[in-house]
This record gives sequence, C-alpha cells and structure tokens, in this order.
Amino acid sequence: MAVYTEITDTELVEYLKQYDIGEMHSLKGIAEGVENSNYLLVTDAGMHILTLYEKRVNEDDLPFFLGLMEHLAKNGLECPQPIALKTGEQLSQLAGRPSAVISYLDGNSVKRPGSTHCRQLGEALAQMHLAGEGFEIERANSLSVEHWRPLYQMSGSGSDGVASGLSALIESELDYLEGNWPTDLPRGVIHADLFPDNVFFLKEKLSGIIDFYFACNDMMAYDIAICINAWCFESDHSFNVTKAQALLGGYNSVRKISDKEFSSMPILCRGSALRFLLTRLYDWLNVPEGAMVTPKNPSEYIAKLKFHQSVHQASEYGEIG
Amino acid sequence: MAVYTEITDTELVEYLKQYDIGEMHSLKGIAEGVENSNYLLVTDAGMHILTLYEKRVNEDDLPFFLGLMEHLAKNGLECPQPIALKTGEQLSQLAGRPSAVISYLDGNSVKRPGSTHCRQLGEALAQMHLAGEGFEIERANSLSVEHWRPLYQMSGSGSDGVASGLSALIESELDYLEGNWPTDLPRGVIHADLFPDNVFFLKEKLSGIIDFYFACNDMMAYDIAICINAWCFESDHSFNVTKAQALLGGYNSVRKISDKEFSSMPILCRGSALRFLLTRLYDWLNVPEGAMVTPKNPSEYIAKLKFHQSVHQASEYGEIG
Repeated sequence: MAVYTEITDTELVEYLKQYDIGEMHSLKGIAEGVENSNYLLVTDAGMHILTLYEKRVNEDDLPFFLGLMEHLAKNGLECPQPIALKTGEQLSQLAGRPSAVISYLDGNSVKRPGSTHCRQLGEALAQMHLAGEGFEIERANSLSVEHWRPLYQMSGSGSDGVASGLSALIESELDYLEGNWPTDLPRGVIHADLFPDNVFFLKEKLSGIIDFYFACNDMMAYDIAICINAWCFESDHSFNVTKAQALLGGYNSVRKISDKEFSSMPILCRGSALRFLLTRLYDWLNVPEGAMVTPKNPSEYIAKLKFHQSVHQASEYGEIG
Repeated sequence: MAVYTEITDTELVEYLKQYDIGEMHSLKGIAEGVENSNYLLVTDAGMHILTLYEKRVNEDDLPFFLGLMEHLAKNGLECPQPIALKTGEQLSQLAGRPSAVISYLDGNSVKRPGSTHCRQLGEALAQMHLAGEGFEIERANSLSVEHWRPLYQMSGSGSDGVASGLSALIESELDYLEGNWPTDLPRGVIHADLFPDNVFFLKEKLSGIIDFYFACNDMMAYDIAICINAWCFESDHSFNVTKAQALLGGYNSVRKISDKEFSSMPILCRGSALRFLLTRLYDWLNVPEGAMVTPKNPSEYIAKLKFHQSVHQASEYGEIG
C-alpha cells in the first residue's frame, strides 16, 4: 500500500487539461502497488487510475510498460490501457514525477485462489504471451540468472540471521542455476510478477491482468514457473498439485507447452523461487527508514525452493496435454 | 492514510448479501482517514465507501455517528449517508470489526483553501448546525475543556523537548481556560474536526462534508473556532483575516452569530488551538510501534495558540453582519 507523493488540487486541475477525459469529480489515493503512487481518479469520463512513478521505477522503462499495455489490449488481452494525452503521448508529468492515466479495470484479486482460478490464470498468461508477439520495444529482464549473485551479495552477511543455513543454501543454488540455466526456450514478453494481487476476477471469472512494471523479454516458460510459485502453494507452504495441473492445463489449452519447456519446469521453478527469495531477503534486511510498507518474510520462498529441489521430473507439477 | 484490516474476497461476497446494492465489481483500500480502514467499494449500484471501525473508535458511539449522518442528509446537508442493510440496520460486522457501507460523495478536499472556500465552509458549517436540530442521540465532547489537563498529563514530561517553554505555556493556558471557559453559549451538534481534509469541493463549489467521527454536542461557536484554526492560517502560521472574515460572514448569512458568541471567539479559538496542540503533542510523543501514520508536528498549534493569546477583541477575526 502506498501513496508516496501528494498532489494538490490546483496541480491536478491543470494536469487534466492535457487529457480528453473531462473535469475532475474526485481523487483518492489507493492502497495498491508498492512501487508507485496510485490514485483513483473520477472524471466526467468515469473511473481511471492515475499513477505517479516513484524513484524505484526507471523512467527509461516507462515507454516499454505503457506501450506494452496498449499493445496487449489491442491484441485482445483484458488489461488496463494508458489514456493518451491530447498530444497522443502516454506519459506526462505531475508533482515532479512521471505520470500516466490508465483505464480502470473492474474486478478484485483473490486472496486464496482455487484450482478454477489457477486454470483461468494459465489461460490468461498464455493469452498474454501470444498477445505480446509483435511488440517492438525490448526490455531485458533485470532480475534474471546473471543478476541473482550480485543481488545476493548486496544483502550482505545477514542471511544466516534470517534462517540457519540460508547462505549455504543460496550459494549452492546459485552455482547450480548458473551452470544449468536453460537458454534455448521460446522467448517472448513475460509479465514476470503475476502474483494473485495482479489478477482480477469478477464473479469468479478472470477479468484482467494488471501491473506490468516488471514485464520484460525472457523465456515464456519462466513466467509459468513464477505463477506456479505464486499460485500453487498453500499458506503452510505445501505444494498443491491440483492447482499446478490446472494452471499448466489452462496455459497449454491456449499456447502449447513444448516438451523442452515442460521438462525445464523444475529448474525454472527453482530459479523463480530463488529470484523472489533474493529480492525478499534484500528488502527484509534493508528496510528503509520511515518505510510505509512491511517487507515480506523471505522464509516462504526458502520452503518453495526446497520443494522444487526435491522434484525429479516435471510431471510432479501435473500433466499437460 | 490507512488500511489496517485486510478483507478476503469470500468474506466480502457474503457480507454484500446483507445489502441491496447488487454484486461486487471491485474493492480498493483508500488512503484516507487515520482512525478507520476505508475502502472504495464498487457494486452494481455504483460507488460506495466501506468503513471498518478500528480500535480507536468506541463501538458505542457508532449509532450516534451513523444516525447523525442520516439525520443531517435528511435535513438537506450534503454528506455521505449510511446504506441500510436489508434488516434496516446501519451497522454490520466484517473481518471481526464493526463496519458500515456509506454513500460516495463526489468532490475533493482543497489543499490550500482561499477565501471563497472559507465563505462556503462557513455557510456549510451553519447549515450543519441547523440540520443537526432534532437529532435525538446525544454524545458528550470527549475532548473538551475538562479533558485537556488529563490529556496533557498523559503526554508526560516530554513537552519541553518538543519546544522550549512548552510546558509552562500549556499549564498557564490550562489555568486560564479552566477558569474562563464559556458555558452559556447556544449548543447543538458540532462536527468538531472540520479540517480542509473533511470538506469536498467540486469545480470550486462545496459538494459536502465528511468524517463525522468526532461529532458531539457542544457549543456551536466552538465549531467555528475550530474552523478558524484549521482554515484561516497560512503555511507559515500567520493569520489570514480575509479568510476568517469570509468564514464568519458565510456562517452568519445562514445562522446568525449572536453577540455573546462573537465576543467569545478569542477564548474559543484559544481552547480549540490548545485541544489540537494537546492531541498532536500526545501523538507526537507516543508513536505506536509499526505506526503507518506519521504524527503531525504540534508546533503549528503552538504558533496558533500564541496568536489567539495576542487577540484583544473578536473583531480582530473580522466583522460579521
């Protein structure tokens, strides 16, 4: 939850003159997203999300994120779309920050997804991968295998204080993943952060995907592995194969998972578990003063990583086909 | 800004069955209010505010607050109204907390109010005082003159660390106010917290008043004094008589300010300044662990109190009539 930047009413009235969405009715800061400040903006034209991009987001990436949302929506994916300024641009400036007005997406995230949610998620993820074809801007994954060791080193020596034996676990996993990470799987635009928070449902039907601010070009199967970690474990960290089977089946019904992609699932799940373990570990050990966001405990991802280390073959995640 | 209690989607679907507002479209925590958790709830019937009452609110007061909003709205004041359950009740229970669904009020608060805002505020405050007539539930002001000394004592010995000489200032002011506080001014239902945050404007026209969770029975002129403190000082803490004149004139055009009320304005302003000084001092010295809200610096109200101490007659606040 976060509203980092306050907006004055006079600034906002001026700002809205750049758009064709009428006059302002109301603006409320919303407790959603941790990277940016988000507001619900109601104008003559209805509800919108106004986002101010805070310092953690690289401004140079914004044309990728906003252009991607537009490209995906044009290709049939349900997701918010940037509202163009009168000039045709998508990006503006408000309260000293880059900002955008984005269409409002109906629906709510699901706190405890079941297997029917997982199946719909799989379908939507595959739709996103197909809809991303032809998008011309590229963005490298800044949190892929080659970034994990430097990220771990930035966490300093505190990891064994978080969990006994954690540094040894991470170091041997880094060795394994760096030596075995696949490089020849089909690539595309991936979401890279498709947690339950970022998928909306309306009356039990998936209504759209939000928050493309980690999206990048990478192996599409890695996106499936991120979702397995984010959607298919219970709150006691036990793996739920019914949910994973539903996710994989839903995905495969829209975009065929190749044998090579499927057999890589265990290592992709290990890599994805380590990626979230490392960012959570870093955030856990480096809480900024005056932080308004409580960091997530990394131990959830220790358990997930250990589970994937114990997997011998991809079929333990469920069958496709 | 605050969302203290998380709601699960399944809880919410059940909860909404108690109301006649259709099915849920979306729910977003909003960064508004420091006492309660507030959500923007969109259903088939449109936009609403869903409030969960957190521990700082006394449950026994909720029928007063909710009943008052209904009473004021029925008597023509623009303010949010509680949506009745199918049973006719206004209060329900969600996520282990008392809760209510309240109508959505269009408009935004103004960060830097000018004198035209102050005039409209004065009119609306007087309308509220008139609309409150006939409301049958009573609620004593739990932050009036007799509560200030105990509240000060709860702050402990830290006040001189906040500002040099502060304890002497507060103690002599307490002596003066306790000996001279008026008791014979016209009473009614007062808002008691009508800061710019709690007044919405739409296209420069006042669209309504929100947040009645400090409302109580007290002298109506004391409510004017609270507004003078909250609306008529500049950010450098200098007093703006044009704004106060507009506020008083607006109020007087709707409900006549008596001579006795007017001549009491200096002491009422001193009392109101001390009341906010004391609660801010207490919050400043007692930040709870893990607080998500930054306490407001009490020094703003030291300056305001000193200004009112220098006032010799009410006409220094502007003329009425």
